[in-house]
Amino acid sequence: MINHFCKYPLWEVSRRLAAVAGGSQPADLVIVHANLINVCTKEIQEDISVAVAAGRIALVGDASHCIGENTQVIDAKGQYLAPGFLDGHIHVESSMMSAGEYARAVIPHGTTGIYMDPHEICNVLGLEGVRCMLDDAARTPLKAMMTTPSCVPAVPGFEDTGSHIGPKDVAETMNWDTCVGLGEMMNFPGILSSNEETHAITGNTLKAGKIVTGHYSLPETGRGLNAYIASGVRCCHESTRAEDALAKMRLGMYAMFREGSAWHDLKEVAKSITDHPVDTRFAVLISDDTHPHTLMAQGHLDHIVRRAVAEGIDALTAIQMVTINCAQCFQMDQDLGSIAPGKCADMVLLDNLTDLNVTRVFIDGDLAAANGALTGEYPAYTYPEWATRSIHIRDAITPETFRIPANTEHIAPDKTVTVRAIEVIPARVGDYERHVALPVRDGFLESDTSQDVLKTAVFERHHATGKKGFGFVKGFGIRCGAMASTVAHDAHNLLVIGSNDEDMALAANTLISCGGGMCAVQNGKVLGLVPLPIAGLMSDKPLPEMADTVAALEESWKEIGCTMPSPFMTMALIPLACLPELRLTDRGLVDCNRFCFVDVEV
Amino acid sequence: MINHFCKYPLWEVSRRLAAVAGGSQPADLVIVHANLINVCTKEIQEDISVAVAAGRIALVGDASHCIGENTQVIDAKGQYLAPGFLDGHIHVESSMMSAGEYARAVIPHGTTGIYMDPHEICNVLGLEGVRCMLDDAARTPLKAMMTTPSCVPAVPGFEDTGSHIGPKDVAETMNWDTCVGLGEMMNFPGILSSNEETHAITGNTLKAGKIVTGHYSLPETGRGLNAYIASGVRCCHESTRAEDALAKMRLGMYAMFREGSAWHDLKEVAKSITDHPVDTRFAVLISDDTHPHTLMAQGHLDHIVRRAVAEGIDALTAIQMVTINCAQCFQMDQDLGSIAPGKCADMVLLDNLTDLNVTRVFIDGDLAAANGALTGEYPAYTYPEWATRSIHIRDAITPETFRIPANTEHIAPDKTVTVRAIEVIPARVGDYERHVALPVRDGFLESDTSQDVLKTAVFERHHATGKKGFGFVKGFGIRCGAMASTVAHDAHNLLVIGSNDEDMALAANTLISCGGGMCAVQNGKVLGLVPLPIAGLMSDKPLPEMADTVAALEESWKEIGCTMPSPFMTMALIPLACLPELRLTDRGLVDCNRFCFVDVEV
Repeated sequence: MINHFCKYPLWEVSRRLAAVAGGSQPADLVIVHANLINVCTKEIQEDISVAVAAGRIALVGDASHCIGENTQVIDAKGQYLAPGFLDGHIHVESSMMSAGEYARAVIPHGTTGIYMDPHEICNVLGLEGVRCMLDDAARTPLKAMMTTPSCVPAVPGFEDTGSHIGPKDVAETMNWDTCVGLGEMMNFPGILSSNEETHAITGNTLKAGKIVTGHYSLPETGRGLNAYIASGVRCCHESTRAEDALAKMRLGMYAMFREGSAWHDLKEVAKSITDHPVDTRFAVLISDDTHPHTLMAQGHLDHIVRRAVAEGIDALTAIQMVTINCAQCFQMDQDLGSIAPGKCADMVLLDNLTDLNVTRVFIDGDLAAANGALTGEYPAYTYPEWATRSIHIRDAITPETFRIPANTEHIAPDKTVTVRAIEVIPARVGDYERHVALPVRDGFLESDTSQDVLKTAVFERHHATGKKGFGFVKGFGIRCGAMASTVAHDAHNLLVIGSNDEDMALAANTLISCGGGMCAVQNGKVLGLVPLPIAGLMSDKPLPEMADTVAALEESWKEIGCTMPSPFMTMALIPLACLPELRLTDRGLVDCNRFCFVDVEV
Repeated sequence: MINHFCKYPLWEVSRRLAAVAGGSQPADLVIVHANLINVCTKEIQEDISVAVAAGRIALVGDASHCIGENTQVIDAKGQYLAPGFLDGHIHVESSMMSAGEYARAVIPHGTTGIYMDPHEICNVLGLEGVRCMLDDAARTPLKAMMTTPSCVPAVPGFEDTGSHIGPKDVAETMNWDTCVGLGEMMNFPGILSSNEETHAITGNTLKAGKIVTGHYSLPETGRGLNAYIASGVRCCHESTRAEDALAKMRLGMYAMFREGSAWHDLKEVAKSITDHPVDTRFAVLISDDTHPHTLMAQGHLDHIVRRAVAEGIDALTAIQMVTINCAQCFQMDQDLGSIAPGKCADMVLLDNLTDLNVTRVFIDGDLAAANGALTGEYPAYTYPEWATRSIHIRDAITPETFRIPANTEHIAPDKTVTVRAIEVIPARVGDYERHVALPVRDGFLESDTSQDVLKTAVFERHHATGKKGFGFVKGFGIRCGAMASTVAHDAHNLLVIGSNDEDMALAANTLISCGGGMCAVQNGKVLGLVPLPIAGLMSDKPLPEMADTVAALEESWKEIGCTMPSPFMTMALIPLACLPELRLTDRGLVDCNRFCFVDVEV
């Protein structure tokens, strides 16, 4: 695949590279005396020099003849030189930061390229929104390679999104220079059932010679997984058991071992290669979703490589898993993933192979970060107004909006009505349908904090259709107050949970007035707020500020009684109708086992 | 890279594959109870079944649910199932067989795909000739993937070829479905010196997203090799020392270990991976040139894999080297090189991992060969008349044509003249310039068999320009008689060597009248003849007949006194002016160290 993420394409600068390697022209940069982490042969080569010109590597070995008067020389004695790290599957939106700020945050950790699936912004703003993210990222040196979101909406017919992506849209994006493939094909039922439109989406990607990335989350390695891979899906990051990852690699699929902020698969999945003496070329490390706190406290791929080493994967293999293996997965190894002549000069210096601290990061031959900080400033990108004013609610929201009239025929002698409640499970993606008897007051169904059952609502917020859905959730622990979020997978409508209608209305209106985000309110007071004005998903604030703001919001959540870890992650999945068991969208309560709408009252 | 060598592209049949894997449609073929050689994880998996539909693999594992009424079931109990073998670099012309006959010869040995560089026919007939070879090969199931010859002519200005390939021609061929890259870039001096046209040839390949294959024959791994690789050359088959192959792999270049009929590099080069515990993903086995005798007596890639195992490479690694590693080199691993869902069903059954005898060969899911014989008949291809009448000599050749008048000023008192003679070295590509005193008879320079010095001539045979060059060779041992050949690298003009003018004329005219080939004559009698009417390079006769005919010719050579092994190989290099030290082309004697024409007489 042609790589459009480089300072110059190789064919424009090959003559200069040959001249530099040969010694007739000086290099722009020479790194001397490094311990080279050679991911091609899985070796450490000592005292190696690397000459760089025109953003690419001209020579690896003895580069003394490449040094001219104006050549920058960096002594890397005692340090380890690795290829820049590549994240094979990442939703930038999960960081709640703009693509530009995300880039600024991860580059100092050694990340030089990401394969991003802008699935969230695409659900809200469509491909125009995706273009904004790409334009934003393009102002930084990070190679932000895009895979076209494949499942927008995630569950057609059960929710309202801001956009719809069909086979024609996919075909069109395949002509974008920024597009390297198709984003995670979550609709594996469509693939397995030979659905025509689903296969047209993957097929249009294959026809363009680009990569179909996957999402096969079933713990099944037989006919289903085979059907999925046979349809052209090249990689998958959804293994949670070692045997699933091993089966994928055996079937020629790149198994992406995930270690995100919310999903910690690595501990189990690493066993696929530590317990089995297999060729590891199909193993890749990825993050999928990373929150500000993780980026601040632990890092990005540097952290994940450390985690892999902690799980018994040797450091050289772990580094191959974020470099050459990933580049080969995307068939971009002619330019990325190794320190070799002709490749883009994306390189990382590490202080040692135990701590794996990133001391310097080079992208296209330029020093992009040193000792944890960026070395340059990049122009800010301003998202257009339609991207930052994306909350479109038809009707004014008041406390009365949240009243759920009880069906008088259902009222039991004890003045209760039995309702379906969504019971969430902390740090898990699944939920349960629970039947709960709720008190009826003045003819309306009410939250019952004594049973930890709270009213919840989802408002369509893309096209001001006025659609809204109501239901109840169990398990958040809120004693008094409300939480709201416009990060609500995958349609990202406005989601509100609360113990009373007044706080719920305040929470909803707080987000509407700031263009989206997440908040907690109690007794008419906003306790915590993370404004996310870009598509209601992201902020243009830098990482440290975001990490602080999110931490403050988490404190507010605790204040109102919610003590689960990362409650916003759990909350954000309430509307995701492709997950079991019961979900709430702007169209109503969905039985996700039978795929039909159901009433709140049993 | 899009693969055009398959029964159906994946996007046309993915729905069927999913249905077959899922069990809702029956497979076309199921192979059961095989020991799978899994090249993805480098393991043997026992009792594995493989389901095939529409020419592709639908499922690997337990395929019992894929078997329907009309499904062909093959029991492979006790056998080993490997991906079809791929030859990463081969000149079909060296086999002296047409592409179709070559395919028929190698398929039973497990070869399902070749990356062919039709350099020889291109020198004679240009891209139109290349198209003929591709059309011929396309009538067989062999995947004959073409790399565009990059160096036609090999040494511009020193010889006359039938064709010329420039950057524009290369760009045009990159649009051919059959073209997967650029043929071996032998002009490494042009690359190293940043020559504009040479880099335009490689650049036009890179611009098309295709692979530049290499030829870097210097025993040098520093600035030259780096410059060459930095220019985008992805693989090289010219390593003769282990350290060269290792250096190439370390620099991210695919090192192709050659074991051809004439060049036996494997013994040395294998040490690059047997003596060093390196990742072997950049190691590939290739043949380069294979003669009929080798194909008959030893086989093709099956033989080379056996040789690799004999040199200490474990069988699984050796098989990776002719399957997945090769496919990844050409970025065609999405379709070729492994037995995995979605891939082309190109598979080989082996009886064991010691003898590695190929018992059955499947291509695109069809049984193509069993127990050493093809199972089907494929329509013959008839080369057009312009391709089979390619010998165009302007002037009639008679014994007088070979008279070389001595310069009377140079005649020594003992009636001799000192001449430059090309001394050949058996089984080596180099030669020496020797100065020899030759007798002058009636004013003409004559062969002197007592010194083993023979007259030699090269006649331009493409455009009937009448150009001809004369000189002397030493080392062939011919006592009486002549040999002629139109296989004479790389221009493939008509080359004649002999002890007397009459036999030389007969040898030349014998080839002219049969459209080219190789022959031996003595005392006015043709002792041996291999007619090669296709471009003067190839025959449309099948392998057994070719092997016999060539063996008979070798006997004739011995009869006239030439006892060196494979003399036609050594002879064929006499005009190759890119090799040291002295060569003869149709334009005259070339000093290949100084790159200038020199006189016969010193």
